Amino acid sequence: MISFQTAPDRYRHWRLRTEGEIGFLTMDVREDQPLAPEYRLKLNSYDLGVDIELADAVERLRFERPEVKAVVIASGKNNVFCAGANIPMLSTSSHRFKVNFCKFTNETRLAIEDAGSSSGQHYIAACNGATAGGGYELALACDEIILVDDGSSAVSLPETPLLGVLPGTGGLTRLVDKRKVRRDRADVFCTLAEGMKGRRALEWGLVDRLAPRSKFDEFVLERAREWSAREAEPRPAGIVLGPVEPEIAGDEVRFRHVRIVLDRGLRAATLVVAGPAGPQPEDGEAVRAAGSDFWPLRAFRELDRALLHLRFNEPEIGLIVLKTEGELEAVRRMDALLVRLQSDRFVREVRLLMKRVLKRLDQTARSLIALVEPGSCFAGSLLELVLAADRSYMLDDDGVQVAVGAANAGILPMGNGLSRLQSRFLAEPDRVETILQHEAPFSARDAEKAGLITFALDEIDYEDDVRVAIEERASLSPDALTGMEASLRFAGPETLETKIFGRLTAWQNWIFTRPNAVGSKGALTLYGSPERPAFDWNRT
Amino acid sequence: MISFQTAPDRYRHWRLRTEGEIGFLTMDVREDQPLAPEYRLKLNSYDLGVDIELADAVERLRFERPEVKAVVIASGKNNVFCAGANIPMLSTSSHRFKVNFCKFTNETRLAIEDAGSSSGQHYIAACNGATAGGGYELALACDEIILVDDGSSAVSLPETPLLGVLPGTGGLTRLVDKRKVRRDRADVFCTLAEGMKGRRALEWGLVDRLAPRSKFDEFVLERAREWSAREAEPRPAGIVLGPVEPEIAGDEVRFRHVRIVLDRGLRAATLVVAGPAGPQPEDGEAVRAAGSDFWPLRAFRELDRALLHLRFNEPEIGLIVLKTEGELEAVRRMDALLVRLQSDRFVREVRLLMKRVLKRLDQTARSLIALVEPGSCFAGSLLELVLAADRSYMLDDDGVQVAVGAANAGILPMGNGLSRLQSRFLAEPDRVETILQHEAPFSARDAEKAGLITFALDEIDYEDDVRVAIEERASLSPDALTGMEASLRFAGPETLETKIFGRLTAWQNWIFTRPNAVGSKGALTLYGSPERPAFDWNRT
Repeated sequence: MISFQTAPDRYRHWRLRTEGEIGFLTMDVREDQPLAPEYRLKLNSYDLGVDIELADAVERLRFERPEVKAVVIASGKNNVFCAGANIPMLSTSSHRFKVNFCKFTNETRLAIEDAGSSSGQHYIAACNGATAGGGYELALACDEIILVDDGSSAVSLPETPLLGVLPGTGGLTRLVDKRKVRRDRADVFCTLAEGMKGRRALEWGLVDRLAPRSKFDEFVLERAREWSAREAEPRPAGIVLGPVEPEIAGDEVRFRHVRIVLDRGLRAATLVVAGPAGPQPEDGEAVRAAGSDFWPLRAFRELDRALLHLRFNEPEIGLIVLKTEGELEAVRRMDALLVRLQSDRFVREVRLLMKRVLKRLDQTARSLIALVEPGSCFAGSLLELVLAADRSYMLDDDGVQVAVGAANAGILPMGNGLSRLQSRFLAEPDRVETILQHEAPFSARDAEKAGLITFALDEIDYEDDVRVAIEERASLSPDALTGMEASLRFAGPETLETKIFGRLTAWQNWIFTRPNAVGSKGALTLYGSPERPAFDWNRT
Repeated sequence: MISFQTAPDRYRHWRLRTEGEIGFLTMDVREDQPLAPEYRLKLNSYDLGVDIELADAVERLRFERPEVKAVVIASGKNNVFCAGANIPMLSTSSHRFKVNFCKFTNETRLAIEDAGSSSGQHYIAACNGATAGGGYELALACDEIILVDDGSSAVSLPETPLLGVLPGTGGLTRLVDKRKVRRDRADVFCTLAEGMKGRRALEWGLVDRLAPRSKFDEFVLERAREWSAREAEPRPAGIVLGPVEPEIAGDEVRFRHVRIVLDRGLRAATLVVAGPAGPQPEDGEAVRAAGSDFWPLRAFRELDRALLHLRFNEPEIGLIVLKTEGELEAVRRMDALLVRLQSDRFVREVRLLMKRVLKRLDQTARSLIALVEPGSCFAGSLLELVLAADRSYMLDDDGVQVAVGAANAGILPMGNGLSRLQSRFLAEPDRVETILQHEAPFSARDAEKAGLITFALDEIDYEDDVRVAIEERASLSPDALTGMEASLRFAGPETLETKIFGRLTAWQNWIFTRPNAVGSKGALTLYGSPERPAFDWNRT
């Protein structure tokens, strides 16, 4: 079972240290510590284990080291920054693992960009040597790329020429959409196995700065200081992120506020989020004192882990039934606190984490059905679960209610830049405001009428209808559902982020199934062997 | 070999007639006239042969019947509008054929929408019975969908529940992005094999109007008259579109202005477009007299056919080398005429056809390399070929020039809504205006400096460098190239159109390769047999 719990003192592949406002995140992958025994992590190449540590470091820097304004991602190896995702790992992995691995690494790179744009914690890639494939894609996710100018070190995306696949972590999209590299130049670059170095890499916009090897570290530090100097906002002290580890007993996975109950026969999981219970902090000081036990932080970190657990450890569970338990008003009070204290940096970080976790939910390739039942607390930030679901059923009975709140008004945007309410009502944008002004909770009938839920059902129908819906859903082709959900969930505008998960990921998935890549004579399969790939030349 | 030449008197599956301002395009598919002998076209289901006739009719209506302001797409069968793409055809076709078939049908449906939005020729789907799968997707491409309200006729997208694939012709995107159907309702609809009928289909926004069977034809006619009444602009008489048939001799395919020379060893085609030569019309009357022999109309229709020929009949040709021959100034004069006469409806139709053909080029899944050599005429509308290419090489020699013109300033937009110059210079939008104001032709060095071409090469390097580039390109994985090009060609904004070809098509391609759809126990393979599909339940 893959665990996502780690901490800097347990990292095997990264070193994290800070000096005042500058953080140093050094990649020094241990070749002999892969996640699976089939491969070795040569040349600072990475596997999921390496990336879990990176994701942890990125999250901790925001919560534990908010004083850090610039983070240097550097390499602990000589002459190589990072060789990208480990190829033998990719060629020995199942299709569904490869796809989920790429999705997770993509989410981590988006978190790096979010740290810069939302929290003024800017990443700088210090490319001290070969920066290839996923290594260059990691650099592309940083706010600045500095390449050593030594006549040999190059940035490259050799996936297409060498492996017959695409750069799987947003590289193509970031080249032309983020860095706006001219498309014909991007075409040349992406087919050139050896990549580009020095002045040409700079001219073509592939890197931001060059520095000679003799002055490289000094130059990088100077740039980090400049990024840091741009951030004037005072930074309070951080909090410590406690571990989030579930108890697993049979088919139950229990966190403090979140639990999963698996029904393997139905290939479905019920995921229950418990709302805030008992007294909660009411001001910044109390929130900070609660630290990583503060309900929204703890509950959404647990939700995050629960989603990753299902993605990686339960591949056959095709459907997630989303439930909540608690009091509507308790959730709304908590959301109101998050909005009231939004100038508090810690509170803002909590809100931004909630945003990222909900995006992870949107991108989870499982059918999502929300059930609104007695005792549930789908209000505000937890109502987002209903809005993120592919559909929802609500029992029409006394006391079963949902409610909107401050958290639904745009502070938890989707990857397309809209709130989930805005995405839901593209046809009737005015309805969003009307709903937001509806302070009273909605009964099932009212919620159905307002368009907040899909179906309100009375006691006679509810149980049967829901059971049939779940059984029917669980019987459909998992692949068709993945493609269907990816198409229906993201109507409206497209952004760099949705393009990476939509256009690019879908093409990559396709290529990852093709004999030209993964067949016995495919380029990915034969990489590193003396044999040349044999392609089916039909263009599709 | 598949031919794309047809005409109304040769249609086997459609009837086209007009009554004043109303056109009637009636689908009456002949079960016993499929394009391949492996299947029969039951229940108004379609194959490529049926869609080639539809595409022809849509194009002819614009040129030959400009007086038509509303076109009713109806069915010649009782109780069935259209059952969609023929399933046995899909399950017996190669992957690359399926993908190219879907691409062509998508282009035709976009042409239907373009007729309404650009030329005020509005399509109405008269759904007199079962409207399933691709049948409903055809309706979705119309400006209005009228469904018979008879208690049984439904619209449906049963692909996911019945076949384990996606609606392949834009259905998912049009539901949530064009019609803005709420995503949870779209989810319910797309998993419901029997679809939705009557009042609920209307309430959910799946159709625009209902009419009882007894008054159906009358109601449809009334709606057509209303659409027609909205278009006040006077409509001149049409012209006749003459046949565009190539001579094929060995590895050469020759049209009047366009020719293809295949190099099967290299898996490359050289596609040469000849610019206007000799005296050309100079006013609206002369243009109209030239009719379908008018150079831009004839040349771009030929280019269109050449691209379709390569897509369907030459699947192993992975690379298209784009060349032109003629005089720069002759092309610029022609473009200037198109702009000067843009209020002339026929001239505007010619320009809109050029736009669609260039979009077909953008969407052609072959590597495109433009070569600018002595005697070429890459100016204005033909310069768009250089801008559409994945990269370009220009010989640095006296007299070898390219030139911008009126046609580069936005009258031939890409699917993303931008001109090819705007898409090229996303990083430096100001450069577009500077280039457009550059009246003099560009030498190779100047063109390289301006960013119009990728590489200017002198005589010593040109031949070798180009040869190596072509050989290298031709050696790469065709699948990886398709995905890479689809990602790099469409930077910037996404539209309904780019989403259909990017996000949706890529997911569909992926699903079309998966054993859950096309394996021996896959849902598409087993459709119609008593055996149930056996799915690999891993979610990806």
